[in-house]
Amino acid sequence: MSEPYTLILLRHGNSDWNQKNLFTGWVDVRLSEQGVAEAKRAGELLKESGLTPDILYTSVLSRAIQTADLALDTADRLWIPVKRTWRLNERHYGALQGKDKAQTLAEYGPEQFQTWRRSFDVPPPPIDADDQYSQANDPRYVGIDGDIPATECLKDVIDRMLPYWHSDITGDLAAGKTVLVTAHGNSLRALVKHLDGISDEDIAELNIPTGIPLVYKLDADFRPVEPAAYLDPEAAAAGAAAVAAQGNKK
Amino acid sequence: MSEPYTLILLRHGNSDWNQKNLFTGWVDVRLSEQGVAEAKRAGELLKESGLTPDILYTSVLSRAIQTADLALDTADRLWIPVKRTWRLNERHYGALQGKDKAQTLAEYGPEQFQTWRRSFDVPPPPIDADDQYSQANDPRYVGIDGDIPATECLKDVIDRMLPYWHSDITGDLAAGKTVLVTAHGNSLRALVKHLDGISDEDIAELNIPTGIPLVYKLDADFRPVEPAAYLDPEAAAAGAAAVAAQGNKK
Repeated sequence: MSEPYTLILLRHGNSDWNQKNLFTGWVDVRLSEQGVAEAKRAGELLKESGLTPDILYTSVLSRAIQTADLALDTADRLWIPVKRTWRLNERHYGALQGKDKAQTLAEYGPEQFQTWRRSFDVPPPPIDADDQYSQANDPRYVGIDGDIPATECLKDVIDRMLPYWHSDITGDLAAGKTVLVTAHGNSLRALVKHLDGISDEDIAELNIPTGIPLVYKLDADFRPVEPAAYLDPEAAAAGAAAVAAQGNKK
Repeated sequence: MSEPYTLILLRHGNSDWNQKNLFTGWVDVRLSEQGVAEAKRAGELLKESGLTPDILYTSVLSRAIQTADLALDTADRLWIPVKRTWRLNERHYGALQGKDKAQTLAEYGPEQFQTWRRSFDVPPPPIDADDQYSQANDPRYVGIDGDIPATECLKDVIDRMLPYWHSDITGDLAAGKTVLVTAHGNSLRALVKHLDGISDEDIAELNIPTGIPLVYKLDADFRPVEPAAYLDPEAAAAGAAAVAAQGNKK
């Protein structure tokens, strides 16, 4: 196969903590029942589209892995090769991990809240290593290159995600494989920012809906040959609006 | 970490076709409800044992993948790296795939039946490429080295499994990783035959129970330093007896 290459991005479905409106980050929460249904629906969309992922990339967080397994099982592709990497993890939310979003908004005000959520280069305060929601002692991060983060802004996510895009994912694309990346709101925003050349300012407004495959066709330089398309555009628009409204929930 | 290395073998749980008493082989059937429960129980046994798999090997058949995912999820290790290979698949049962075991026994008599089930080097008749239970056109086998088998005896399974043991699995063991191999009755019999040096004759009597982790401690030459042990020896003995009785079901 030659270009255009096919890249499919999929944000994990609703999790237990999405439902509780808590900042999650690297805390390893599971899909909610709604999230399980979203993941299966993503698999149906893949199947209907005729797209056949040849290889899967996921983060090391259960909600992304669950989403991928449910979607691929539904699409009869559970057997494809898998690569997992912490570099596709959600943004580390620092000391906000485990905190209620509405309560954080009320406590710190809308400006500080929005800065922590959407600023390109201002991370939240770091989490203490002995905080119950720290990953300092999580066995899945033993031996990773560099230090385990204690907080991240979107720029930090780009800095740890993009090297992996270049070193691993593009290689599979160049080999003609249809690549499925199942990850998180911010690791996918980081990748979309790179692919679509979105500015540091404009990325704040970009929201990625959960559970709806986003399909890129890429040229030999891994640049889009046409705008990326969600497999269910109507549901995607509604989903993106719902993400944008997060934190305003009472 | 140095030797002894830790290798854990796990046969997938009861499948829909085990329950129906059909020859399965490479047909991609799913776990039964009982099989799902067995897989979760295997995960509990792993967790209780304190063994922490660092890497997973599975076949490309859903029942082995499901078993691994359920067990690892239960053991909080869903995030470990995974390698899948057709070389760990169940024995291809040739023209018997999809046939009822009791009916096959009645039709061909106990001698022929037992030869097909347990002979070391006599495969069943090959399956036609256009048989509904052939894998000649299954996308998961596109591009595998050599031809897709149309039937296999245990010797054939050893011949395609052992090269992968030497090329891939032993490398991870030598790196000090605890390796979990989730596979099938015959691909695991092939591996156990190699590890324990069982003769071509004696391997006929060896039965591996479903859903119970079997733990090997291996020296630098990947030979057992002590007899392998099931994590639940009592259940394993009962399970092996149940496997041996298969085909006699009315």
